[in-house]
Amino acid sequence: MPPEPRTAIATVCLSGTLDDKLAAAAAAGFDGVELFENDLLVSPSSPAEIRRRCADLGLSIDLYQPFRDFEAVPPDLHAANLRRARHKLDVMAALGADTVLVCSSVSPHAVDDDDLAAEQLHALAEVAAGRGMKVAYEALAWGRHVSGYEHAWRIVRRAAHPALGLCLDSFHILSKGHDPAPIRAIPGEKIFFLQLADAPALPMDVLPWSRHHRLFPGQGDFDLTAFTGHVLAAGYRGPLSLEVFNDVFRQADPRPAAVDAMRSLLTLKESLGLLDLPPAPAPAGHAFAEVVTDPGAGRVLATLGFARTGVHRTKPVELWEQGDARVVVNESGAAHGAVGAVALAVPDPVRAARRAEALLAPVLPRTRGPREADLAAVAAPDGTEVFLCGNDDWRGDFVPTGETADGAGIIGIDHVALTQPFDHFEAAASFYRAVFGLTPSPVTEFAAPYGLVRTRGVAAGNVRLTLDSTVVRRGEWAPAVPEPQHVAFACTDAVAAAEAMRALGAPLLDIPGNYYDDLEARLDLPPSRLAALRANSVLYDRDSHGEFLHFTTALAGARVFFEVVQRIGGYRGFGVVNAPVRMAAHRARRNAGLPLGTLA
Amino acid sequence: MPPEPRTAIATVCLSGTLDDKLAAAAAAGFDGVELFENDLLVSPSSPAEIRRRCADLGLSIDLYQPFRDFEAVPPDLHAANLRRARHKLDVMAALGADTVLVCSSVSPHAVDDDDLAAEQLHALAEVAAGRGMKVAYEALAWGRHVSGYEHAWRIVRRAAHPALGLCLDSFHILSKGHDPAPIRAIPGEKIFFLQLADAPALPMDVLPWSRHHRLFPGQGDFDLTAFTGHVLAAGYRGPLSLEVFNDVFRQADPRPAAVDAMRSLLTLKESLGLLDLPPAPAPAGHAFAEVVTDPGAGRVLATLGFARTGVHRTKPVELWEQGDARVVVNESGAAHGAVGAVALAVPDPVRAARRAEALLAPVLPRTRGPREADLAAVAAPDGTEVFLCGNDDWRGDFVPTGETADGAGIIGIDHVALTQPFDHFEAAASFYRAVFGLTPSPVTEFAAPYGLVRTRGVAAGNVRLTLDSTVVRRGEWAPAVPEPQHVAFACTDAVAAAEAMRALGAPLLDIPGNYYDDLEARLDLPPSRLAALRANSVLYDRDSHGEFLHFTTALAGARVFFEVVQRIGGYRGFGVVNAPVRMAAHRARRNAGLPLGTLA
Repeated sequence: MPPEPRTAIATVCLSGTLDDKLAAAAAAGFDGVELFENDLLVSPSSPAEIRRRCADLGLSIDLYQPFRDFEAVPPDLHAANLRRARHKLDVMAALGADTVLVCSSVSPHAVDDDDLAAEQLHALAEVAAGRGMKVAYEALAWGRHVSGYEHAWRIVRRAAHPALGLCLDSFHILSKGHDPAPIRAIPGEKIFFLQLADAPALPMDVLPWSRHHRLFPGQGDFDLTAFTGHVLAAGYRGPLSLEVFNDVFRQADPRPAAVDAMRSLLTLKESLGLLDLPPAPAPAGHAFAEVVTDPGAGRVLATLGFARTGVHRTKPVELWEQGDARVVVNESGAAHGAVGAVALAVPDPVRAARRAEALLAPVLPRTRGPREADLAAVAAPDGTEVFLCGNDDWRGDFVPTGETADGAGIIGIDHVALTQPFDHFEAAASFYRAVFGLTPSPVTEFAAPYGLVRTRGVAAGNVRLTLDSTVVRRGEWAPAVPEPQHVAFACTDAVAAAEAMRALGAPLLDIPGNYYDDLEARLDLPPSRLAALRANSVLYDRDSHGEFLHFTTALAGARVFFEVVQRIGGYRGFGVVNAPVRMAAHRARRNAGLPLGTLA
Repeated sequence: MPPEPRTAIATVCLSGTLDDKLAAAAAAGFDGVELFENDLLVSPSSPAEIRRRCADLGLSIDLYQPFRDFEAVPPDLHAANLRRARHKLDVMAALGADTVLVCSSVSPHAVDDDDLAAEQLHALAEVAAGRGMKVAYEALAWGRHVSGYEHAWRIVRRAAHPALGLCLDSFHILSKGHDPAPIRAIPGEKIFFLQLADAPALPMDVLPWSRHHRLFPGQGDFDLTAFTGHVLAAGYRGPLSLEVFNDVFRQADPRPAAVDAMRSLLTLKESLGLLDLPPAPAPAGHAFAEVVTDPGAGRVLATLGFARTGVHRTKPVELWEQGDARVVVNESGAAHGAVGAVALAVPDPVRAARRAEALLAPVLPRTRGPREADLAAVAAPDGTEVFLCGNDDWRGDFVPTGETADGAGIIGIDHVALTQPFDHFEAAASFYRAVFGLTPSPVTEFAAPYGLVRTRGVAAGNVRLTLDSTVVRRGEWAPAVPEPQHVAFACTDAVAAAEAMRALGAPLLDIPGNYYDDLEARLDLPPSRLAALRANSVLYDRDSHGEFLHFTTALAGARVFFEVVQRIGGYRGFGVVNAPVRMAAHRARRNAGLPLGTLA
């Protein structure tokens, strides 16, 4: 295995003051930072103090950036630029930083003259070299005359100064569709710095795309593994450094954001064969799901045909089962609310927990499982607990009740819907992908009654989670509680299940007739099928692979409800198109004075 | 004056369930709605119930929309489309809606054949006509074969059916740079519907631009007055209807959003000469500003050279003055916090209040001014009170103290900074523009320590306000109090004022040396000037018109501070480039345990 590269993060990736950012970067395990100039300018600490602070935190300052609009200008401006540069090199000396990033000019004063650009960059490199410093020249995707890395490399080669090299930024190269393979032919020692950013494919100009929508590696549509592979193949031995401008990351708590950033780099290293981690656990299915709620959820499960099969030895916690669906109902407090835990059946929980820990997932103390259970638990970014179960020993916590029920057609857990705070949406998908090997589906967006909701699934085999981003609502318009989460159970005949559950008194949501009138207008469903859906308030969707029938209960607690789904053929989605209907029906029920899982 | 057109709003503009949207539209005074199909589908009310609800609210349903992917398809698909259309026309009959919007097709099955499109639309119109209904055909900017209104008009003309006409949407036309003037040549009776939306000029594909970034008329970069003028000149006599897809409006409280929407239409009507309102008041300056705070703000003003010239007859409210700067300090409660009121000197308060009321600004009861004062007050969207003062009679509320002070160079109020909740940012600018005739400057964005902040000024003559959008921060990262607001005082020598105020013990913010090192590197300021700025923690900016020197106090209450500014030459901005420095300095002071306006 080649040597593991150092890691760095640009301070501009994170929210807060420079102190906040440095502390967060160090806590997440970064080796160094790119110091973004604005973070320095607003800091009450002197460069020398910042140098000491970084040293105390174990952080190097690997890059000072950005230095703008330098090359290829008339002589008087060149003199002013050199004067400006000397000031900045002084600051860098005090900081203990030895490399400055020079972005290709966007100035109207710059001329299209590679010889002049090379000459002036040579002059700057000479000044830097006199102080033992280096200049890393980068082609901005929107540079006035230099906007591609191959062009920047021609200028650097022409300047031919040992203190002048390239900075390569994956976004600037991949956003323009430039082929990164020729990077392999650049001598590694002339690549002074490597900045990594992913991004979703967006149909917009490259500048606002870059300034607002960058993501950490693995979160977007670029192939960062291939890109970084080319740079390492060229012989680059500097840090892998993240430079991600993202509107949400910029306002989110920098501590989890830095962890998310580092997790993306660790996963990138793994994909490059630079880091040896225990493999992702390939979960076989949902061992169980835990809902945390006020008393009531258990009664709702009974109306869905579940039996209360166990009672916790010491806590107000019950185990409910039907088929292979197992739900732990924790009535000990609704503070955390909603889905408290997802439990994945994995072949080797200890090994899976080792991977999770290496990927910075907090491993939770095993206060709740019996000592002998083959079990581990880690925390997701939003605090949801993820249990890793090697076998059924976790049942040892529960005293069997001997209770049984006839069931109502549920055969297992289909998926768990983990509504996310808006600023955990990207990190949540990255977490489940990196730690457990679940594959995220593309992000889609739907118009919910209260705003646009972004959603994606993460899945592997029979384990499926959905991650919806909640809408920010403010003031009197803010909801009393955040959007609910839910557990969706699988069945083989949704209509029959709905009928059976209604007979048991299940508080199922009523779906408006307008919805079925639209189905009738749009689709060629057999009339008897449509009538059965309508009569039972069962929702319908289809894709090119198959069909999806589903229905939901009223809220069975402040922030949780249950869903029953039937997949026909190879349907791959989660009925997202019907989510607005469900949300409005929950609201209608609340308006009718039936806030929780009032039984019929 | 021509007849005043009716007004309508598409339900998709607003947040909430259909009930929420209809109630908000009616309360804001709209005559009708465009019913967006998804709002119907998720509604628990039947079409007949919705019809009654609208009638009860005094709303007509002027359009049912959208009907997609109809024209120019193979025969079997055409038959299915007609079947689908008959279902929707049935729904419309129950709703009492007589016009359906058909958008130009984006289907891969559609062919580029105007004859076929005309033939199939003719067939649809024939079906509609049989029920007394009409079809309004609209060219989507991203339609597969039909993407311009002139093309849509050729097809409608070719179809030659009395029940087939055009729907014109300002966004689809103006976003593509199409000339709207030829609309004048279209017979008005063939324009069945007019949808109005503004938008900022954004460098992105037209589809995401349309789906996420539309604005109400007057809030963006399109000339809606000219556009609407062409349509009216053609003889269109239908409603002016808003169709605005905007991510923020979709999640904001629909009640103020509908008011904002209606205000934009009223202003548009005024600009078209269709509505006769009292003119905007042309304020001469700031009569005073009121800050609501816990005890302490007054002491800070004393250190800025203000004298406490009056004490309110009945309340814990003081008047402080220096030069023409007057500040009312309301220590009666910090609940509202920050800037409580701006008071504008206007020639005719009663007339100005009549305009405000006509533009849906709540006119506040005059509980606080003396009966005889020539004074009115209205509420801005965020609750800030705007007083309209015809003279100085408002001083009658205060018992003169006889106190004087030597002053420290302040000559008046330069501007008041009204930090806005993120979902009031557009509405606030529209409010001050429409009601008081202040001109908004373009929106700019700056990278603050805690995220990107959007900002703009609104100004006329000597009245200037700034509107910053606050960053949404969540969980542990949420600030203890929202971003502060402030009152900025004008002086003619900022350095001298800062020196004088420091001598008086003013709690001025210390600005980091790094900031001045950067000024030195970037600008060619005379060394003595730079030294004076640095020694006094005075910030500096310049534009092509002049220079700007400014400094601020520490927080003088939970959410308010003061600024002192000096404009040199014709500088037009507000020193936005320095806002991040100020924000970080406030944070540094808080970290140092000096949260409020602790005196030096």
